[in-house]
Amino acid sequence: MSEFHKTAAECTLWTEEAGHLIDKARSQGLSLAWDRLEKQTPQCNICDQGLSCAKCIMGPCRLIPGLDRNLGVCGADADLTVARNFGRFVAGGSAAHSDHGRDLVEVLHHIGSGKTTAYEVRDEAKLRRLAAEIGLKAEGDVKAVAKAVAERFGQDFSSFGPGLSFLGRLPAARKALWDKLGITPRGIDREPVEMLHRTHMGVDCDPVSLCLHAARTALADGWGGSMIGTEISDVIFGTPAPGKTQVNLGAIKKDKVNILVHGHSPVVSEMILAAAADPRQVKAALEAGAAGINVAGLCCTGNELLMRRGIPLAGNHMMTELTIVTGAVEAIVADYQCIMPSLVSLAQCYHTKFITTSDKAHFPGAETFHFTPENARELADRVVGLAVEAFKKRDPARVDIPVEPLEIMSGFSNEAILGALGGTPAPLIDALKAGTLRGAVGIVGCNNPKQKQDYHHVTLARELIRRDILVLVTGCATSAMGKAGLLMPEAASEAGPGLAGLCRTLGIPPVLHVGSCVDNSRIIHLCAVLANAVGVDIDALPVAASAPEWYSEKAAAIGLYAVATGVTTHLGLPPMILGSPAVTNLAVQGLKDVVGAVFLVEPDPIKAGEKIDAHISAKRQALGLSA
Amino acid sequence: MSEFHKTAAECTLWTEEAGHLIDKARSQGLSLAWDRLEKQTPQCNICDQGLSCAKCIMGPCRLIPGLDRNLGVCGADADLTVARNFGRFVAGGSAAHSDHGRDLVEVLHHIGSGKTTAYEVRDEAKLRRLAAEIGLKAEGDVKAVAKAVAERFGQDFSSFGPGLSFLGRLPAARKALWDKLGITPRGIDREPVEMLHRTHMGVDCDPVSLCLHAARTALADGWGGSMIGTEISDVIFGTPAPGKTQVNLGAIKKDKVNILVHGHSPVVSEMILAAAADPRQVKAALEAGAAGINVAGLCCTGNELLMRRGIPLAGNHMMTELTIVTGAVEAIVADYQCIMPSLVSLAQCYHTKFITTSDKAHFPGAETFHFTPENARELADRVVGLAVEAFKKRDPARVDIPVEPLEIMSGFSNEAILGALGGTPAPLIDALKAGTLRGAVGIVGCNNPKQKQDYHHVTLARELIRRDILVLVTGCATSAMGKAGLLMPEAASEAGPGLAGLCRTLGIPPVLHVGSCVDNSRIIHLCAVLANAVGVDIDALPVAASAPEWYSEKAAAIGLYAVATGVTTHLGLPPMILGSPAVTNLAVQGLKDVVGAVFLVEPDPIKAGEKIDAHISAKRQALGLSA
Repeated sequence: MSEFHKTAAECTLWTEEAGHLIDKARSQGLSLAWDRLEKQTPQCNICDQGLSCAKCIMGPCRLIPGLDRNLGVCGADADLTVARNFGRFVAGGSAAHSDHGRDLVEVLHHIGSGKTTAYEVRDEAKLRRLAAEIGLKAEGDVKAVAKAVAERFGQDFSSFGPGLSFLGRLPAARKALWDKLGITPRGIDREPVEMLHRTHMGVDCDPVSLCLHAARTALADGWGGSMIGTEISDVIFGTPAPGKTQVNLGAIKKDKVNILVHGHSPVVSEMILAAAADPRQVKAALEAGAAGINVAGLCCTGNELLMRRGIPLAGNHMMTELTIVTGAVEAIVADYQCIMPSLVSLAQCYHTKFITTSDKAHFPGAETFHFTPENARELADRVVGLAVEAFKKRDPARVDIPVEPLEIMSGFSNEAILGALGGTPAPLIDALKAGTLRGAVGIVGCNNPKQKQDYHHVTLARELIRRDILVLVTGCATSAMGKAGLLMPEAASEAGPGLAGLCRTLGIPPVLHVGSCVDNSRIIHLCAVLANAVGVDIDALPVAASAPEWYSEKAAAIGLYAVATGVTTHLGLPPMILGSPAVTNLAVQGLKDVVGAVFLVEPDPIKAGEKIDAHISAKRQALGLSA
Repeated sequence: MSEFHKTAAECTLWTEEAGHLIDKARSQGLSLAWDRLEKQTPQCNICDQGLSCAKCIMGPCRLIPGLDRNLGVCGADADLTVARNFGRFVAGGSAAHSDHGRDLVEVLHHIGSGKTTAYEVRDEAKLRRLAAEIGLKAEGDVKAVAKAVAERFGQDFSSFGPGLSFLGRLPAARKALWDKLGITPRGIDREPVEMLHRTHMGVDCDPVSLCLHAARTALADGWGGSMIGTEISDVIFGTPAPGKTQVNLGAIKKDKVNILVHGHSPVVSEMILAAAADPRQVKAALEAGAAGINVAGLCCTGNELLMRRGIPLAGNHMMTELTIVTGAVEAIVADYQCIMPSLVSLAQCYHTKFITTSDKAHFPGAETFHFTPENARELADRVVGLAVEAFKKRDPARVDIPVEPLEIMSGFSNEAILGALGGTPAPLIDALKAGTLRGAVGIVGCNNPKQKQDYHHVTLARELIRRDILVLVTGCATSAMGKAGLLMPEAASEAGPGLAGLCRTLGIPPVLHVGSCVDNSRIIHLCAVLANAVGVDIDALPVAASAPEWYSEKAAAIGLYAVATGVTTHLGLPPMILGSPAVTNLAVQGLKDVVGAVFLVEPDPIKAGEKIDAHISAKRQALGLSA
C-alpha cells in the first residue's frame, strides 16, 4: 500500500466523517483526489522543483543543474526558470482573488446605478465609512455613494488611475519601503499582466527582480483585489458579527433538500440562500416529501455565508468530493475557484445536480446558468427548483451522513473584534504589552491531499494557543478548527493562562474565525491598525501567518503578500522553487533584509509551532516586551 | 551528429553569414541556442503535448491518456490541461504586447502633459485623425489632443471603461459575431487577468470555454494593446513611408562604434538613435579611433527603426547571438521581449556591453539603466558613451563580419499603401476582382532553432508570390525576406504575371515590409478596411496569415487574434496542444464554424503554400471571383 493509499483512519485523524465516506466511495469504485494523487505518484521531480519551462516552443526545457542540460534553449538557468514559474504561479493567485473583487465592484456599481434590485446595500454605515476613507463624499443618497465608491474602486483595477485606494491604511514606513523597493502596486490588473510580460521569453531575466515583482503582484491582491472584495461584500451583504453556527458533514440534513454552495463569491450564494427561503420553494420541497430546504456551504463561499448569515459549513477543500458521497446532496451550486473538476462526474454517480453559475467557470456536464446582477434572483429560483426536483430522485438507501454537526462561533470581522474591545485596539495592545497575549497568528489556506487532512491546521493552532498566541483563521482552516472544537469559547481550556483569561473575559474562542480566503485582507488590515496604533511598521509586530496545508496559487499570493506586508509566514509545504538555491534562499532568508519578513517552511506542525513561537518571542523582545 | 548539430551550411540555406559565425562560435567553445537545443533534446514529450500541469501543489501532474494517470489530482483530464496551458500561453503573449502598448500610452501622456521634452508628436495629422476616429476633439492644441488621446487609450486597458477604442474599425458582422460568442474584449488588461483566473484550479473547466476566452485575450492584444502600440508609435515617431535601407550582419560596420538596439519598443531605441547622432558623441567616437557611430537593429526594435528611420537591420531572432560573435559590437541595448538571457554571458566573452533599459527587464551581469520618458535622452547619452568607451577595448583580430549588407525596401504602413493607391483601397479591390492579385498573406513571427533558419519564411513567400499572392511581412520574417532579395522591387521577377505587373507599375516589391510584431495590427486593420470597402466580413476575404518559424507566446497570441478576426493562419510548428484531440480539432477544424477561420499546421513550406493557395482560391470562388 502506497504512501497515499491510507486507510480511512489514517486519512482522518480528527474526524471520522471523511474516513467513513472515503471507504464508501472506494467500495463503489469512485475515484477521489487521494486516489488520483496516488496514481500521479511519483510526480515529476523536475516540475516539482520548478525546473520545467514551457513558455515558448523552442522548449519545452528541463533545467537540470549539474548536468549538461543546465540551460534552456534561450539560455535561462535554473534560478531564472524557477523565478519565472513562481512569478506566474503567484500571478495566477493574485488574478483569481482580484477578479473576484472585480465582481463585487460590478455588483456595487449596479446597485448604485439602480440596475439591480436583487442586491442592496446592507451596511450603509460601512459604505459611508469607506467613502470617507478613500476621499469621497460620504453623505447624501446611498445609491450615489455606492456608485461613486464602486467607480473609485474600479479605478484601482486600472493602470492609469490614482493608485490603490487602501494603501492609505498602511503604516507610512511600510509604504515608503515599498516605494523604495519599487513594489508598490500601481493597478490591480497591471501587476499580474506585467508579470506575464516579464516572464515571457527574453524580458525579465533576473530572479530577484522577478521575485520582487511577484511581491508587487501579490500586494495588488492583498491590498487591492482581495481587500476590495472583502470590504464591498460587507457593504452589500452585511459586516459579520459574532454568532454561532455549525460545521461538518452533519450540516447536510437527511430529511431536507440539501443545496451546497461551493466556490468563493457571496454574490451568487447569497441569492441561492434568498431563493431557498422563498415560501413557494419551501412549499415545493414539502410537496416533494422533504422537511424543507437546507443550504450549507463548502470552501470559501461557505465561509462567506457562515460569517454573515450563520449558514453551516459542510466542509473544506478535501471534503468537497465526499459531500456527494453522502448521497444526500441535491445540488452543488458552484461559482468559481477550488472546484475540483472531478465533482461533475462524481455528481453523475448520484442524483446530485452540479450547477455552475459563472460565465467564467464552465464545467462540461454541468447544468449551466449565467448569473448577472440583473438576473440573479430569478436564476437562483430556477436553481433551487432544480434541487427540489432532484430530491425526488434521491435514493434513501445511499444516504449516509456519518456525523452530527458541531457548534462553532464565527463572525469576527475587524469591526466586531475592535467593537468588542470598545472601538479601539488599545486593549489588544495592552494585552500584548502585558504578555497576557503574546502574539497573534493567522492560520489560513487550503487542504492538500499530500498531508493528513486538517491535522496540520489543528495541531499548529493548539501549539500556538497554549503559548498564549491568539489564532485567526480563514478559509479551509475554518472547518478543521471547528471540527476540533477550537472555534468555541470552551476551547479556552486548551489555551495558555493569559489567552484563556482573555477568552473567558470576552466570551470568545482562542481561535477566531475571520472569514474566507479573500478575507485574509482583514488580517493584514488589522495588522496595519495595530502597527499604526503602536507607531511601528508591521514587521515589528509579534505576529505571523501560516498556511500549513496550502495547495493553490491563491495561497501562494496570500503568503507572499503577507511576507511583503512584513508578516513572516509559515508554509507546511514548499512552493515549487526548490530547484533554485537563489530563489529558495531569498524566500527563507534574503527577504528578511528586504521586507523584514520571510517564509518559514516546516512540514511538522509541532516544530512549526516552536519556530513561530521563537519568531514571536524575538519580535516581542525587539519591542522591549517580555519574550 | 544529432538532428540539431547541423553543419553551418545546413543551418543557413539562405545566407552564409550565420553558418560562418556558428562555426566560429563553436571553435571558441561558445554555446548558442542550437547547441542548447541539442542538449535539451529529447525534450519532454508530456510538456510538449501540453499535458503537464504545475498550477497547484497537489500536483505537479502529468496527464497521460490511455494510462491510469489520465486525470490530475483535481480531476482535470488531458483536454482541460491542454486548454489551461494554452490559455496561459496566449495570455503571456497578449500581456507582453499590451504592456508594450501601455508604455506608448504613457509616453504620449507625458508629451501631452508636458512632462517630457525628449519625445514629441511627429505625426500631428495622424494624432488628430485618431482623435476624431475615437470620438475626441481633434482640433486645438496638439498637446491637449495628445493628452486626451492617451487618456482614452488608457481607459482601453481598464475593465470598467467604455471598451476598446478600435473596435469601431471592425466590420459590423465581425463585431456582432464576437458579441454573440462573448469574445469581444472588455479591457486590455482584464482578459489576460481573467485568463489567469479561469486557469486557476477549479475555475473554468471547459476546454472550449477556455479556448474562446483565449481568443478574447488575443483580441485584446490585436485590436487593443498591439494596435494602440502601433498607432501611438506612429504618432510619436512618425508614420512609416517607403524607403530603402539594408539588412544582414553587414549592417555592423567594421570601422565604426556599433550599437545594436534589441527588443521591441521604439521608446528607448529612438533615443539611442538621437544620442548616437549627437556631434559630441560622434566626436568622441572619432577620438576613440572609430569612423563614427553606427546604430543597427535587432528583432522588432530593429523593425521599428527600420520602418521609420531606415536604420539597417542586423538580424532577427536566431541572429542575435551571432551578432556578438562578429566581435565588432560595442553595445547591445535591450528593452524587452525575445532577448535571450544567453546574450549576457556571450557579450562577456567579447568586449560587448550588454545594456538593459527597462525596469521590467533586468539581466544579471548587464549594465542597467532605468529609462523613463523624463530621463530618456540623458540616459541614452550615457549608453552611447559606454559604447564609445567599449570600442577602445575591441580586439581587431576577433572582428569577423562575413557579409556585405543587402538593400531592401521598407516602410509600408497602411497609410503608405493606401496613399500609393490614391487614398482608397479601390485599386486593390479591383486588382483582387480582376485576379491580377489573387490574394494577400501576412508572413509573420519568429525564428525557431528547430527549423532551418529563414528557409520556411522565404520558401513560403516565394510559393505565394509566384501564385500572384501579395505577401506582407513583419518581425523576424523581415530579415529573412530581405536576405533573400524579396524586399526589393526587382523581386517582381519571382512573382506571377499579375502581381509582377502590379509591382512594376507601383515600383514596389512583391513582399511588403509592414513593421514589427505589434504592427501585425496594421495587417488586421487593413483587412478590416478591405472588408468594409467590399461590404463583407473579414473571413470572406481571400487572405491568410502564416507564422512559419514561430516560437513565442506573442506569436501564439497573434495567430489566435488573426484567426478570431477571421483570417486563417498557417503555423509551421504546432503549439503545445497535441495532447488534446478536442483542443487540436477545435484549432484546425472546429473554429471554422465559430469564427470562420482555422489554424493550418504544416511544417513543409511548399505544401503550406499549396494549402494557402487552395484556401485563397476557395475564398475567391465564394466571392464569385476566378479561383
